[in-house]
Amino acid sequence: MGQKLSVVGKSLPLKEAWDKVTGKAQYSTTMNLPGMLVGKILRSPHAHARIVSIDISKARALPGVKAVVTANDFPKKLFTVNVMHWQLDGGELMDMYLFADVARYIGDPIAAVAAVNEEIAKEALALIHVEYEVLPAVFTVEDAVKEGAPQIRDNAAGNIVVPPMSVFPTGDMEQGFKEADVVVEGTYTTSKAIQAGMENACSIASYNSGTGRLTVWSQTQLPHMARRMIAHLFDMDEGRVRIIQPYAGNGFGAGTDLNCEPQCCALAIKACAPVKIMYDRAEDFSNRLTREHICKIEMKIGAKQDGTPTALKAKYTGDAGAYMAKTASGAGVALASNITCYEIPNIYQEIEVVYTNHVACGAFRGFGGMQSTFVRETLVDEICQKVGMDPVEFRMKFHRKVGGLGWFPGTKITSCALDKCLEIGAEKIGWKEKRARKKEGIRRKGVGVACMGWLSGAQPMLLELSNALLKFNEDGSCNMIVTPGNIGQGCLGSLSQIAAEVLGLNYEDIHPISYDTDLTEWSVGTHASRGLYCLGLAVKKAAENAREQFLRRAANILKVAPVELAMGGKRIYVAADPQKGISVADVAKDAIYNYSGNSEQITARASITPTAFAPPWQAGFVDLEVDMETGQVSIIKWITVHDIGKAINPMTVEGQLDGGTGQGIGFALYEDTIISTENGKMVADGFDKYKIPSILDMPDNESLLVEEEDPTGPFGAKSVGESGIFLQAPAIANAIYDAVGVRIRDVPITPERIMSALKAKGQ
Amino acid sequence: MGQKLSVVGKSLPLKEAWDKVTGKAQYSTTMNLPGMLVGKILRSPHAHARIVSIDISKARALPGVKAVVTANDFPKKLFTVNVMHWQLDGGELMDMYLFADVARYIGDPIAAVAAVNEEIAKEALALIHVEYEVLPAVFTVEDAVKEGAPQIRDNAAGNIVVPPMSVFPTGDMEQGFKEADVVVEGTYTTSKAIQAGMENACSIASYNSGTGRLTVWSQTQLPHMARRMIAHLFDMDEGRVRIIQPYAGNGFGAGTDLNCEPQCCALAIKACAPVKIMYDRAEDFSNRLTREHICKIEMKIGAKQDGTPTALKAKYTGDAGAYMAKTASGAGVALASNITCYEIPNIYQEIEVVYTNHVACGAFRGFGGMQSTFVRETLVDEICQKVGMDPVEFRMKFHRKVGGLGWFPGTKITSCALDKCLEIGAEKIGWKEKRARKKEGIRRKGVGVACMGWLSGAQPMLLELSNALLKFNEDGSCNMIVTPGNIGQGCLGSLSQIAAEVLGLNYEDIHPISYDTDLTEWSVGTHASRGLYCLGLAVKKAAENAREQFLRRAANILKVAPVELAMGGKRIYVAADPQKGISVADVAKDAIYNYSGNSEQITARASITPTAFAPPWQAGFVDLEVDMETGQVSIIKWITVHDIGKAINPMTVEGQLDGGTGQGIGFALYEDTIISTENGKMVADGFDKYKIPSILDMPDNESLLVEEEDPTGPFGAKSVGESGIFLQAPAIANAIYDAVGVRIRDVPITPERIMSALKAKGQ
Repeated sequence: MGQKLSVVGKSLPLKEAWDKVTGKAQYSTTMNLPGMLVGKILRSPHAHARIVSIDISKARALPGVKAVVTANDFPKKLFTVNVMHWQLDGGELMDMYLFADVARYIGDPIAAVAAVNEEIAKEALALIHVEYEVLPAVFTVEDAVKEGAPQIRDNAAGNIVVPPMSVFPTGDMEQGFKEADVVVEGTYTTSKAIQAGMENACSIASYNSGTGRLTVWSQTQLPHMARRMIAHLFDMDEGRVRIIQPYAGNGFGAGTDLNCEPQCCALAIKACAPVKIMYDRAEDFSNRLTREHICKIEMKIGAKQDGTPTALKAKYTGDAGAYMAKTASGAGVALASNITCYEIPNIYQEIEVVYTNHVACGAFRGFGGMQSTFVRETLVDEICQKVGMDPVEFRMKFHRKVGGLGWFPGTKITSCALDKCLEIGAEKIGWKEKRARKKEGIRRKGVGVACMGWLSGAQPMLLELSNALLKFNEDGSCNMIVTPGNIGQGCLGSLSQIAAEVLGLNYEDIHPISYDTDLTEWSVGTHASRGLYCLGLAVKKAAENAREQFLRRAANILKVAPVELAMGGKRIYVAADPQKGISVADVAKDAIYNYSGNSEQITARASITPTAFAPPWQAGFVDLEVDMETGQVSIIKWITVHDIGKAINPMTVEGQLDGGTGQGIGFALYEDTIISTENGKMVADGFDKYKIPSILDMPDNESLLVEEEDPTGPFGAKSVGESGIFLQAPAIANAIYDAVGVRIRDVPITPERIMSALKAKGQ
Repeated sequence: MGQKLSVVGKSLPLKEAWDKVTGKAQYSTTMNLPGMLVGKILRSPHAHARIVSIDISKARALPGVKAVVTANDFPKKLFTVNVMHWQLDGGELMDMYLFADVARYIGDPIAAVAAVNEEIAKEALALIHVEYEVLPAVFTVEDAVKEGAPQIRDNAAGNIVVPPMSVFPTGDMEQGFKEADVVVEGTYTTSKAIQAGMENACSIASYNSGTGRLTVWSQTQLPHMARRMIAHLFDMDEGRVRIIQPYAGNGFGAGTDLNCEPQCCALAIKACAPVKIMYDRAEDFSNRLTREHICKIEMKIGAKQDGTPTALKAKYTGDAGAYMAKTASGAGVALASNITCYEIPNIYQEIEVVYTNHVACGAFRGFGGMQSTFVRETLVDEICQKVGMDPVEFRMKFHRKVGGLGWFPGTKITSCALDKCLEIGAEKIGWKEKRARKKEGIRRKGVGVACMGWLSGAQPMLLELSNALLKFNEDGSCNMIVTPGNIGQGCLGSLSQIAAEVLGLNYEDIHPISYDTDLTEWSVGTHASRGLYCLGLAVKKAAENAREQFLRRAANILKVAPVELAMGGKRIYVAADPQKGISVADVAKDAIYNYSGNSEQITARASITPTAFAPPWQAGFVDLEVDMETGQVSIIKWITVHDIGKAINPMTVEGQLDGGTGQGIGFALYEDTIISTENGKMVADGFDKYKIPSILDMPDNESLLVEEEDPTGPFGAKSVGESGIFLQAPAIANAIYDAVGVRIRDVPITPERIMSALKAKGQ
């Protein structure tokens, strides 16, 4: 606290910036290996159909085709593309096969081919003859749970894969509602959004039949967990699978699930040659796992007349699509994240998950919390309205404080600067004045607020094992070997800043290296806003270990005690006599070259399994205008105020928040892949149909930071990976109410929905 | 000792065998990077000439040319391609520039170009106009040291770069000769041989102008030392240079010097693009540093009438060629290796090194020892002849024993099984019977013997820092991260055997990884027969550390004390109750996944700076026939008997010895690049002119192993990297004397030399 910092806290360029802006960065999609084949996947044209027979003889005979694989080529083994899933020995999450025996959505992989070029691969796909027994299908939860609905899987009676299951209940919900003076409630729905990375799904696999080792170039965010799942699928020892992660042109959670790695590996094994599968845009949209679930959320909140919340009840019904993947965990996270925000003594929430015949659901930045924040924060607005309390004041008064309950039973909030976030945001947006504006005319203005407390890694619920290996070159610079599951989020640079700060080095002296499970220690990767916090702790610990070694060696050279020494400016010097010192480079060099029978390069490693729950808090404010004639929403100003603990690299943090604002607005106003209720086909399967905010759609926006150090984070830092994206939908919905007096309970909040609400209200 | 071994001692396939035989292995010459340019070097056509001016304007203007570099593009900085050289701050070894200001041999680099293809690069070379001031040149030591000879460098008066300098003298040489009853002496010469790898010199460099980092794909055997020298040359921090070592199709010492890396890096920096330089065969021969020196050796040995040696005097004059590189160190090693073989109380030896105008000298398997062994072992044959003692008996009686002096003052011989080697070899070849054969007719038969004691790493003279990092996957398999400077010598497999043995794993469970200075710790690489011994000690220590961790964790799970446990068959079990146990995989998995707030992948590392001198010993026997009419030598049988300590992988050891036999015969009978004494040009600059033994030239040969464990080696092992190559020349020369009574003191022992000796002798 209060220490003078040299590198931490500075806005420094991303470590990968140069490679990316000069086009030198290699992505899975740009990479080529010698002798590499082109792989293509044959997909089901039916939303639900049994595969009766497959005839691949013509495809196999086509010159230039090197391999055709179907379900017959590998043992029939259950797996899931959700590599986060820990239990590989069964359970309802393990519900996928490499190739489907029964196609359960339009796009389900049936077979794959590898050929010397794309034309031949496509021609070969056309030559595969599949006989389907088309089955009736269901495309919505409502239809899926109807009496007599077609059954999508044998083990999910009534298509209910997770029957109602409570999540971390606390207190006595019934009693809580009895104590309430006001109760608000509503039923909400959210859309099936897609991560919409610029790079389509792509993977390359290469199999060495001599050593039995399989190398996969993957867009995964979780390299070691991806390795684990691929090893499981192909019945290989984990040590025989190697995941290399080139630069990634997507992510946002998409990399927590496999995309085409399984089929690509199958082709590589069969062809004994490197194979690359790269989706085209429509294939990418229609087959990449979408946001964790389309959900229906019923929520009810009770409060006393003074606003004090007494009870919360919620039910999240997740539409999983054809496979479980992340639907149940997304729903669980959604509910858990409701627990922390407010001091509500009595909470009961449950999830239910239902299969339908469309593409399954994975993860998208803001996992689960997107949906629940939208619901909770708009219902809180209704409470404020009912009890006549200012929404900012309500939030300041009733949000949980330090020591309060975290998401998970037993966890405690380690820091909270939400009051300050709310205060700054309200001041900046001009809250009081703008709330007082008259609502008249065609274009009506409104302001809205929302807030939340997120997490910095999913510990202690999930294993967030993180580690760092530091290796000091003769020039005193440091190779920092880490596995953050780099997806361009800027983590490598921020981790470098932490290492440099501890060691008194410059940012440029830290060379981050991170991409290969053969070389890096087992580490979780990127999910749950964990990178900076969890890996940061590992890097800091390793750097402190290295620092001790440097001081000890320097003390020996300078003939002083280590405690007398300080480290800074790439030097180690006597604190009381700074002229007396030695460069870090000379100590590093001496360790290797000053041969006295015990030379040894200075290296340090650290493993961390964090346990504390360090939530970043955030307030979001919007000023907007609604056109009463068209339902068009125009955002005048957006303000995010984020309690970051400590911004290791403010520019990166602000970049994360700015990007989040764009994606949050997309979620709030535009994005929906739209599954046809007629045939289950994705309607908006490309950027021509699926609207994401472009730079022209971005409002005047500000991302502001509040830095009150968290006692558990590295240099006090908490996370920012996901939290920029949550508050746009509820704040916008609240501002729309402020402007035109209608509550919209479905995202995206399209002009049609606003017009229809206005109409229902009789305006 | 005497322990039951499961993996060590087995003949197992090389780890890289599959990649190589299936053509999947990537070499520098086969690799391509996106946007890679072709580099070519403009070389001096004169053996000695001052560069007056260079006009690159036409070359630079040629479409497709991306960079032209000359001495003007970089600061004029001295360096040496001999990356073994430790003192970077000056001294006579630092005698090269990136591009020559004065060309000192035909081939000296003057400029280089990078272009989009080879044709344009060649055309550009032709467009560079260089004005030379041609200077008189010298091509032999005799001419170089003559009064008034042209001076090759200012700092080497009379072209003598190292004036006579004694090497580890011991006792009183003059007194020793006074005590001698017989004295033998002679002047010998050896040839300028070339390593003759199948892959030509090649390197690829890529410079990132954003991060200032330079990546070099190199054929080096010493990645971290190559990095150090390249960083020095370009005034970069070591941490900004990254050396990646693909598979190598050459080596044999050639990789201890840089080849075209400097010019390739210069082009990459100038072009800001990846550049590849690949020599053609004639360029490779004429510009790759050859055997450590052409030497003239004068040696004298004195002995008593009973054979007891009393004194040895030697002078080695090394013809360095145009630059120092490894000539002085090669001469020094030659002399040092004379010290160990026999109990000679009084030794005085000195080296002298002279510049001439031909390509400089590097390292070739058998560094220095090739020359001295040839001389010493043939002179010993003369002593035997003079005192009437059997050469096998002489060697058995007078070789140094355990505890005797190693090469370097203060070192002691740790093990010696030479008696057994001599005994087995004599028996196998039929020594006594064959010595007694009558010499008559046109084709006369003779047998010869030679022996030597080599080293297992150059410690304690040189830093032999070695290390290993072991990382245990969830399946219990181990990623072994090491830097042996892999040149296909089989070291990766043998090191894997050591790790597997310690850990009770199978050979297949060890995945060796080794190629990148960014990721591996500072380690010396491959030279001086160090790999298996030095790295083996590091791997063994790391594996023992890992074993302790496994036992401790297993003990905790099994609720027993770690000392009660044994490790084998991929299990850890109670020694007294082998049924009670747990698999290594389950312990490895538990360490990561059994999340209890302290998960941590099992990893272990070790650094070793070995200090003991553990010489492998060897006896070589030959039976041959000399044609009195043609001088043709036909080898009937060759036998190598090698004291390996312990053969970790007997097949690999035998392969090293068999290959050595081929190269030793080449040195003895065929190989000489032949420098023209008229213009300094290399005459035999390709395989059409430079004869190496093909498989058809290989005699009936046997490689036999004696395994008496060395107390300091890993599992008792000593080295075999170089030692197969030494004894062919002296044993053949001795056998020729046995057959036809002439002593040949020059290699290669060509038919011409034999005929001329026979003629001189009057036969």
